[in-house]
Amino acid sequence: MVWWRASSADIDVNPDLASERAAPSFCVESLTNLLDGSVEKTRVRRYVVSTILKDPVFSKENHYFKTRQERYEGAIRNSFHLKQKIKELGWREDGPEGEVIYRAMGGELALNIHGVFIKSILALGTDEQVAKWIPLANNCNILGTYAQTELGHVGKTCTHAVVLAHLIIKEKNYGMHPFIVQVRSLKDHSPMPGITVGDIGPKMCFEQIDNGFLMMRNICVPKENMLSRYSEVLPDGTYVKRGSDKINYFTMVAVRVSMLRAEVLEALMKACTISIRYSAVRRQSELKPGDREPKILEYQTQQQKLLPLLATCYAIHFTTCHVNKVYDEVYGAIQAGNFDSLPELHALVSGIKAYATEICSNGIEVCRKACGGHGYSLFSGLPSLYTKVTASCTYEGENTVLHLQAARFLIKCYAAARSGQSLPHSVAYLSSPISGACQASSHTHFLNPDVYIKAYQHRAYRLIDSAAFKMRNLVQSGMEQYAAWNSTSVELVKASIAHTHYIIVKLFADVLDSLSSFPEIQKVLKSLCDLHALHGIFTNSGDFLQDGHLSGKQLEMLTEAYLGLLSLIRRDAVLLVDAFDYADQQLLSALGSYDGNVYYNLLECAQKNPDNKKVNAVFENYLKPHLQSNISKL
Amino acid sequence: MVWWRASSADIDVNPDLASERAAPSFCVESLTNLLDGSVEKTRVRRYVVSTILKDPVFSKENHYFKTRQERYEGAIRNSFHLKQKIKELGWREDGPEGEVIYRAMGGELALNIHGVFIKSILALGTDEQVAKWIPLANNCNILGTYAQTELGHVGKTCTHAVVLAHLIIKEKNYGMHPFIVQVRSLKDHSPMPGITVGDIGPKMCFEQIDNGFLMMRNICVPKENMLSRYSEVLPDGTYVKRGSDKINYFTMVAVRVSMLRAEVLEALMKACTISIRYSAVRRQSELKPGDREPKILEYQTQQQKLLPLLATCYAIHFTTCHVNKVYDEVYGAIQAGNFDSLPELHALVSGIKAYATEICSNGIEVCRKACGGHGYSLFSGLPSLYTKVTASCTYEGENTVLHLQAARFLIKCYAAARSGQSLPHSVAYLSSPISGACQASSHTHFLNPDVYIKAYQHRAYRLIDSAAFKMRNLVQSGMEQYAAWNSTSVELVKASIAHTHYIIVKLFADVLDSLSSFPEIQKVLKSLCDLHALHGIFTNSGDFLQDGHLSGKQLEMLTEAYLGLLSLIRRDAVLLVDAFDYADQQLLSALGSYDGNVYYNLLECAQKNPDNKKVNAVFENYLKPHLQSNISKL
Repeated sequence: MVWWRASSADIDVNPDLASERAAPSFCVESLTNLLDGSVEKTRVRRYVVSTILKDPVFSKENHYFKTRQERYEGAIRNSFHLKQKIKELGWREDGPEGEVIYRAMGGELALNIHGVFIKSILALGTDEQVAKWIPLANNCNILGTYAQTELGHVGKTCTHAVVLAHLIIKEKNYGMHPFIVQVRSLKDHSPMPGITVGDIGPKMCFEQIDNGFLMMRNICVPKENMLSRYSEVLPDGTYVKRGSDKINYFTMVAVRVSMLRAEVLEALMKACTISIRYSAVRRQSELKPGDREPKILEYQTQQQKLLPLLATCYAIHFTTCHVNKVYDEVYGAIQAGNFDSLPELHALVSGIKAYATEICSNGIEVCRKACGGHGYSLFSGLPSLYTKVTASCTYEGENTVLHLQAARFLIKCYAAARSGQSLPHSVAYLSSPISGACQASSHTHFLNPDVYIKAYQHRAYRLIDSAAFKMRNLVQSGMEQYAAWNSTSVELVKASIAHTHYIIVKLFADVLDSLSSFPEIQKVLKSLCDLHALHGIFTNSGDFLQDGHLSGKQLEMLTEAYLGLLSLIRRDAVLLVDAFDYADQQLLSALGSYDGNVYYNLLECAQKNPDNKKVNAVFENYLKPHLQSNISKL
Repeated sequence: MVWWRASSADIDVNPDLASERAAPSFCVESLTNLLDGSVEKTRVRRYVVSTILKDPVFSKENHYFKTRQERYEGAIRNSFHLKQKIKELGWREDGPEGEVIYRAMGGELALNIHGVFIKSILALGTDEQVAKWIPLANNCNILGTYAQTELGHVGKTCTHAVVLAHLIIKEKNYGMHPFIVQVRSLKDHSPMPGITVGDIGPKMCFEQIDNGFLMMRNICVPKENMLSRYSEVLPDGTYVKRGSDKINYFTMVAVRVSMLRAEVLEALMKACTISIRYSAVRRQSELKPGDREPKILEYQTQQQKLLPLLATCYAIHFTTCHVNKVYDEVYGAIQAGNFDSLPELHALVSGIKAYATEICSNGIEVCRKACGGHGYSLFSGLPSLYTKVTASCTYEGENTVLHLQAARFLIKCYAAARSGQSLPHSVAYLSSPISGACQASSHTHFLNPDVYIKAYQHRAYRLIDSAAFKMRNLVQSGMEQYAAWNSTSVELVKASIAHTHYIIVKLFADVLDSLSSFPEIQKVLKSLCDLHALHGIFTNSGDFLQDGHLSGKQLEMLTEAYLGLLSLIRRDAVLLVDAFDYADQQLLSALGSYDGNVYYNLLECAQKNPDNKKVNAVFENYLKPHLQSNISKL
């Protein structure tokens, strides 16, 4: 087995997949470089990934047969081994290797919340507290977690927790404050007196992670364990608040930015790779009477399921690149003491986090179902991609809550524009009057990014305007502000989705402009950009028709253009997922391997099933008496 | 613990849930009777369910901690025990107890495919073959399965299989025919010579079922093992075909009809019960400044997620009642030799199976995510409802394939109507001209079923008409029929969905007319019917706007009516799920119990986790050296 394919010539590829790669319209390697950011970055990524995949400690052999306990132990083992390895090889977790390492490990790591513990102390502790706790935590002399009034983070591993608890001094409640509490003995790992702690039990996925519950009865915490960068209790019981904790708010944004590429988009890219390769190999039914069964990718309905998701991968990829850039700029400004752009960044990231997690998790299920019954087998790799990524719709900010936060910003900006103030870049369109009706008069006009960008902008503008209008009316008719907000919240969520969708479409089109020196890649990405945009209009057509921005006739033209793009992109579909450049050991899929030898892989996986090697106890205990009572009749 | 609540007075109910039940606008028990079909049917159901739940053999204690092997053994044990019990109690699997038994067991049964084996022999065997094999199979002296060229049905349990294989006589291939093949020894359960057989490995759910793979090398099957009701090979090698196998086609329809209520709708009803009760107990954030945290069910966005799904439960329920009725009628006709209505029934059931499985499985995920992080815990009961029911989108006919089959019937009927032929009942509207624009001029007009039924009918008509028009044009422009079909298939699927949706909306409204003697129930069901219909228009508005059946202004009115229904139904939401009448032991959910003691339940479940009782081996093997190397610093 090769760890990285030098060329497809190394491998005995299924002819149905080989034929897809026979006449590429663009250079796959160049597209991979573009996705990575540069030739050098591709090189570094491959080096890191192959180094990790080659290490027998990290082997995922028999991954899908493992129990929860085995996954947990494996993740702990991986984490310590990785720490050692990173040190030896001189990699940097905050350097170019950082994100790649996490992606190459496929998330089979533990102690993630130990990182949150460390970040909390760095952000909320005084200099003395940082000096005391951080070296201990960095050396894993203590293992930390984070605890608030939710069953959630504590698990089976940790020894210490940052606990969010009410601070009450002389019967006055000062609200939630952070305290470091030791929860388990360092000697024998038993719970400290007064502490009840344990794992919360099985989840939909994340078997390798121990999430826990924690109960505390009559626990004394020394005063110096209250993290006191922003508020302190003096020896005489006086409460002192100081400084601004805006930076915490930024930490939350940082986590959302980093999860987008490494956890969310990653999963959809893998699902597209698996389902599109499989669709080029799997043959079924009859298209032309008398002909051989066609590849299922020839069916328009299969194209309609998978190709818009492929386009979405590219769209979200370029969006995350942009978000990272903006994030770095804002971070720079904040370090210079300027917090002005934080609200815009927060709103942008909130909308994109909610939008991307929803579309990627739903999309993976579409990919899975498009593989039929085989998609239901864990060996396909698809069920675990879904059950894992769907959690991201809830963690790091529940999606509806995030859309409403983004909408609050949009409504505020809309009002500011009405009163003549200038607006931040991403919402500047709310300052101009709403655009008029779409001018397209033929299906080819819808392949012009200006046309569809304007349509998306128009839709976002109208929905924001209409939500603001409704709220104003409700308040003027005597409803309280909070009730008017709640009564408009369905429409506010729609407005945030529309705004986010507009941003994503526009960013993709912007990228095309920068690719004039790669005309072949520009061409295929242009088609993907068109497909992503037109698919969005086709599936949300009411939003574009409602005020007549599009006419019914125009929607028919658009549909024609949209369906035409499906058969166009179908030709490059396998190459466009090849460009994501996953090694088979990253995909962990019997359906999605580079060589396309699906049925061989499936059977090989099934035969590894340890249950097949055991004697079936059920025979002795239940079946035998029945099966042997009437043998003479046979 | 009570096995059936006599009245809510027995239980210490969370006050937040008790208050939801304090002033019912209708009699919950009467609604339960209506859902069951009669007072007597409610009684029988409760008797069967409580008999099963009380039996310690069937206990689901620690269900969520079980391994795949434990689930499989449990399902085998349950199946044999249930067979015995049914015999003792005189229940009938084809009688009123039948479906209820399956639902009460929550699917924890094995040998399901043994039933398919039996049905295949009954349908495809000659009288002599039936006489030989059926008694053996009924007594479980042999355990059968079904095998075709897919990894799928064979597993670890069976001894015999009906194998679909090519019949080749003197080098001529007569296509697929069914053969009975023994795959395992009845003596020691080892594979027969030439047979390789085993379990295919872990799946997204259905851990209790062993699906298998089968390879056969040089297997001799006696000629009398070819199931020969419809085709026979004479001793001299002559191939004889006889009779029509239309009835097989009917068997397929029968399976789809029976799964709708027992597997698909059941899961959404449970998910709604769990998530709506939880939303009436869970309090979070702030609505009115300074007030106590509200129940999350007060948020419009939460209502928008859950209440349309509640309405969908009722809509699909009445649809399945209707489908069962039509099925019985067609079955009666077929027994009298009349197959005329079979194509209509087949198309109807195809569309409804595809529509219902899709909407129920997507809906369960909405319910799960609406419960936030707790919905991700297996203890919520929601992940396993989803991972199980999502399989139904693929099994018994993949949904896209089924929609295309339904669409083929619609297009055929549409053409027949154009040539003056009369149409079957469910598609009769295609004979009249398409209706004109909607006449509603205020939001209250949209609470008139005639208005929205007409809108749904108009949409279905237009989409069928437009697909037929496109296909005709493509063929006229020189495209071959099969290619024109494929190029229109995205639109054909839309047409089938629209037709099915129309049928469902209409059937719900028809039920309302029959309820005039139960005015309170009629009233609340009317609101649910309205909500279901308006939600469908709100979320698919483009289909209604495209040709101007609705104007943008009317869609605004409709939105107002729709949002108004959310707050109206919110008042009865808990009672409307109570009426589904699930015992806690059926829901298996820490979030959804009748008493609403969510946090107590969650903690109790977590503490039962066997992993919490063990010493954490990870401490000794991995953590200790780190934790104890720097204790002096603490």
